[in-house]
Parts: sequence; structure tokens; C-alpha cells
Amino acid sequence: MTNVSIIGMGNMGEAISALVERGGHTVQKLTRQDASVPVKGDIVVLAVPYASLDSIVAERGEQLAGKTVVDITNPVNFETFDGLTVPADSSAAAELAAKLPNSNVLKAFNTNFGATLATGKVGDLTTSVLIAGDDQDAKAQLSDVVTASGANIIDAGSLKRAREMEGIGFLQITFAASEQIAWTSGFGIVK
Amino acid sequence: MTNVSIIGMGNMGEAISALVERGGHTVQKLTRQDASVPVKGDIVVLAVPYASLDSIVAERGEQLAGKTVVDITNPVNFETFDGLTVPADSSAAAELAAKLPNSNVLKAFNTNFGATLATGKVGDLTTSVLIAGDDQDAKAQLSDVVTASGANIIDAGSLKRAREMEGIGFLQITFAASEQIAWTSGFGIVK
Repeated sequence: MTNVSIIGMGNMGEAISALVERGGHTVQKLTRQDASVPVKGDIVVLAVPYASLDSIVAERGEQLAGKTVVDITNPVNFETFDGLTVPADSSAAAELAAKLPNSNVLKAFNTNFGATLATGKVGDLTTSVLIAGDDQDAKAQLSDVVTASGANIIDAGSLKRAREMEGIGFLQITFAASEQIAWTSGFGIVK
Repeated sequence: MTNVSIIGMGNMGEAISALVERGGHTVQKLTRQDASVPVKGDIVVLAVPYASLDSIVAERGEQLAGKTVVDITNPVNFETFDGLTVPADSSAAAELAAKLPNSNVLKAFNTNFGATLATGKVGDLTTSVLIAGDDQDAKAQLSDVVTASGANIIDAGSLKRAREMEGIGFLQITFAASEQIAWTSGFGIVK
């Protein structure tokens, strides 16, 4: 059994908790107010907005050494809604990995709206979680947790692919914001 | 009735022809060998690989003035399979638009595998075609052709969004190349 710590108990944190627990794994739920509570999980999901990543690194950087750290953020420029705030050839996940050199950083869940993780369905489709990262053991560990919930995983490749995954997450948000899709559905993958 | 010229009769050209004709619109089918045959359509789909766009511009740039020109390419670096060949802050569509300043360039169809356009289905889902572009009339014209076929359209915004659409197209190709999805299925959108 894998213990997963989730930092951030908003819509996404709750949805990922539901996914983990559905698969029979355990969750340590931490809010941003729990900064003094040590993370216990082997996998730590940072279910916070992009703007909060730096403070998490400052508060918990040393605790996260040796752990699998999952970045789920979409660094959308919410002022212009016309692009991402990270450099075009980078990604939020690449930035985080540079700040946590002793952690195994993965990108996952950012292309899924919360409801599709909580239920395991996008409409009638099984939810697919894209995972990118450079450490194969870390990917396998997270993949086991996701597939135990009944969701599919797609190995999106190295952490470089976070760039394209953040592009998908951004587009999906714009489609929902423009009311072309529901915030409870969105991209699905037919294998 | 809209007349659509399609240049390039490979898998994608044939699939887009099938889509257009299913909606009751007409297609002028042109291969790369038909360089001397003038395009007649109001919409011209360049169903060719990224590497062929420059020669199309050289052969037909003047003919394409005033027309809606659809770029469907995914400028994947097929040597490394580790990124796109266009600059990170640009896209194949942005490059094409710069070379065809008197045409209304749209990005579309690059996130759909051919079979999903030919049949209108991704598994049990209705195929969704993402369209990005800066000219609203051109987008409406192409949207009418696509929706007449029974497929859905998603307005992905300005031509800048071609960057993220090419990221989706690239990821989808890597998922199929790594046999995680079929070349006949892939991304779908649940509204």
C-alpha cells in the first residue's frame, strides 16, 4: 500500500484524494495551514496553484528529498488568458524539478478536471491520467496508484513533455471558460 | 455550398475529403503533382507534411490570397521524437501565416487522426475538430463545413493557440507510436 500525501485541499486535492482512496491506498490530507506537519507519504501531490509552488519549496524542500513529487499545476496567465506564465521552452514542472533536485518530480493530473478524477469517468469514457517524468520508478509508483483506482494511465514520456501537457491543460481551461465544454468533462482518450 | 480544395491526397487529405463530402460540400482534390492546376476552393486545406509547406507557398502563394488556408501540420522532429522543429514560442501555423499575409490562415485537424475525421467518431465519441485563427469569418466558414459532416467543432481561440494544438498533436503521435493508443482513435472531447 502506498501512502500519498496531498498538499492543498481544494477541488483538485479532494478529487485526487478520492481517486487514491478508491484504489485502496491511503491519503494524508494537508492544507496550506499545515506547514508544520511533516509529509509522511512516499508520493507527495502538490495540489496547489502554480503561484504557491515556491512557498511549498521554501517550507518543505528538505522533507521532499527522496520522494516522488507530483506537480499538477497549469501556469495560465489568468490576467490575459492568452498564454502561460512560464517561458515557452519550459514548464512549471521543469521549474519545480530545478528547485527540488533531490526529489523525483512528475507531471500528472493537470490535463484532468477534478470531477473526472473523483469519478474515474469523462462522460462514458474511463478517465486517462497523463504522467511525464524522468524517473521510471517514480512513474511506476504513481501509475500503480492511478490504475488501482480504475483510471487509465498514459506514459507521456520524459519531464520535457510537461510543456505539451501544460498546453493541453491550458486549452482545456479556455474551452471550459468559454462554455464550450463543462468543467466536469473535457479531454478524454480513446485507446 | 462551400468548395474546398485539398492539396495532398495522403491519409489526412483523403480523410478530410470524406468529411467535407459527408456534409454535402464539394472537394477539389489536388496532389502535389498538380502544381499547375489552380485552386478553385474558397477554403484550401494544405494536407501535406510540415516540410512541404514552403514549396506550396512558393508554388501557390499568390493564388491563396484572399482565401481561407488551413494548416493541419504537426512539425514533429521525427529524428529525435523529442520535440517540435518550430521555435518554442511559435508554431507551424504562425510561420505559414507570416508567409501568406494576404490569406486567412487557420489551424485545424492536426489534433485528429485521419480515421476519426473519415468516420466522424473517436470510439463512441463524436469527433471534435479544434480550430484556431484570427479571422472570424474564415473560422465560421470552416466550422460550417465541419459541423455539416456531423463532427463537433471547438473554437480554440486566436492563431496563437496553434502552439498548444501542435503540442497536442505531437503528444498524440507519441502515444500512438509507443502503442499506448491506436492510430485510429486518440484524443476526444466530452462536452
